[in-house]
Amino acid sequence: MDEFELISRYFDRQQGASGVIVGIGDDGAVLAPSGDHDQIQVIDTLVSGVHFPADTNPADIAYRAVAVNLSDVAAMGGRPRWMTLALTVDDPNANWLESFASGLFVAADAHGVALVGGDTTRGPTVTVTVAMTAEVEPGNALLRSGARCGDAVFVTGTLGDAAAGLDLLQRNEENKFLTTRFLRPSARVATGQALSSLASAAIDVSDGLAGDLAKILQASGVGAEVDIEKLPLSLELCERFNAARRHSFALTGGDDYELCFTARADAVADIPGITEIGIVTESPQMQFRLHGDVVEVSDSGYRHF
Amino acid sequence: MDEFELISRYFDRQQGASGVIVGIGDDGAVLAPSGDHDQIQVIDTLVSGVHFPADTNPADIAYRAVAVNLSDVAAMGGRPRWMTLALTVDDPNANWLESFASGLFVAADAHGVALVGGDTTRGPTVTVTVAMTAEVEPGNALLRSGARCGDAVFVTGTLGDAAAGLDLLQRNEENKFLTTRFLRPSARVATGQALSSLASAAIDVSDGLAGDLAKILQASGVGAEVDIEKLPLSLELCERFNAARRHSFALTGGDDYELCFTARADAVADIPGITEIGIVTESPQMQFRLHGDVVEVSDSGYRHF
Repeated sequence: MDEFELISRYFDRQQGASGVIVGIGDDGAVLAPSGDHDQIQVIDTLVSGVHFPADTNPADIAYRAVAVNLSDVAAMGGRPRWMTLALTVDDPNANWLESFASGLFVAADAHGVALVGGDTTRGPTVTVTVAMTAEVEPGNALLRSGARCGDAVFVTGTLGDAAAGLDLLQRNEENKFLTTRFLRPSARVATGQALSSLASAAIDVSDGLAGDLAKILQASGVGAEVDIEKLPLSLELCERFNAARRHSFALTGGDDYELCFTARADAVADIPGITEIGIVTESPQMQFRLHGDVVEVSDSGYRHF
Repeated sequence: MDEFELISRYFDRQQGASGVIVGIGDDGAVLAPSGDHDQIQVIDTLVSGVHFPADTNPADIAYRAVAVNLSDVAAMGGRPRWMTLALTVDDPNANWLESFASGLFVAADAHGVALVGGDTTRGPTVTVTVAMTAEVEPGNALLRSGARCGDAVFVTGTLGDAAAGLDLLQRNEENKFLTTRFLRPSARVATGQALSSLASAAIDVSDGLAGDLAKILQASGVGAEVDIEKLPLSLELCERFNAARRHSFALTGGDDYELCFTARADAVADIPGITEIGIVTESPQMQFRLHGDVVEVSDSGYRHF
């Protein structure tokens, strides 16, 4: 099967989607952006054996490739609209592609994103790049740089599940909730849009809370104090791992794709599914406290001073 | 060096570019599209060992990755504005990245395209994906589907040089002109923009004239007759290869990144650097003639019936 047959059989499903003048099948897509909006563009790549185990189900690979881009869009407060796909596969057989396309469209359809173009290539390593375009009211894009002293620090959902899920996958152990949190992360798109006019700064938690919050603080020129016991943890995580492990997953584990943001606490009182975990400080340090004591957080977890 | 240092050292050069509200360094780029324009989006991937020899100079790899996207934009008649880069490298050392970035910006700066974001990942195979956004007057995007019976068929520049250059590179032979035509293709962006309101259909010649013209004809529901002796060939190609080889390179060689388009001949009389090679016919066949005789073109060249 050549590239053109592949594309039309598995990927050309969204002609007629909103704002799509010409979709898949020409040299490029032709789109009609909304008048008087800013545009957000993101791009993310997943490489087999690096970002997911080589034996991952193709549907999960595709779902995740879309979700990590949706998560970047969410962290900017955008409404996702269109995406293009660059897919490198070693052996583009029908079963693999059908599974891949099914996961891709489950993730995209959930947020109304149309696949408008792409490039399929052969190569020795499965590599999936999605480029996504979103829109936002002029001036409302959520940046990392707006955190102010006195803002509260929040996160969405629960932290640490994805890293715990990956840990289980790598040891061939089962916990459907935790492994699904790794394989099929939920991008917080609706919450990001709701926050776009309310939060002062935001980032998505892809590298781990400690590292990603540090990027907000650095970009904003401020610090923060975070209470570890306030971190929202799932019951599944707590039942499976002891306090030290679950705190380590939550602080440094990565792959959560929750949002971490700063805001005046009263401004976001009506937003569901968020947890206040700390406060922005003038002093540019990032301090984590456990039961009142300052602890040091590193890639391998945390320790008491 | 971690990803953030890499990005800022080698790629974060274009803050303040036209229409860029927030460039590299946040979760996504924030852009200001021109009001009342259609937008064109393209994406293309180059894989080491598949699309370029593994020992290709990183500057040439990057130049080419930008150029193939510019060529898609040219084929749509667009004005290129912004691009994002997904770069997978096995060993991101400073020399490699510095060379890569230099080639990238040479290609981008020549057409005023700003690099507004990206993702750098580690992986075993060097893989470069560029996603590019362009703008065009509403309704003026050049599609493959508008060719009409009686239109003339044109190409820009000369054909076959790139395939001849690749052939020489693979045999370790030299001809700077021909190898440069492969390594550093010139995307016909200005010509594409000039044609956007004049041509009836267009495509860029990436897979070879015969295959790419066939796509225009299929999308338009028409046929064409092309005179092989009218194909524009460079002096360098003619001096190095006999008639059969050069015609084969020109018809099926690929990688030219010239434009093939259809138009009323009088409508494009003032466009420089184009050659009329044939005519669009009502009968849906694609016929190639050499000295008046119909010849059959296949991947391996052509033969007389």
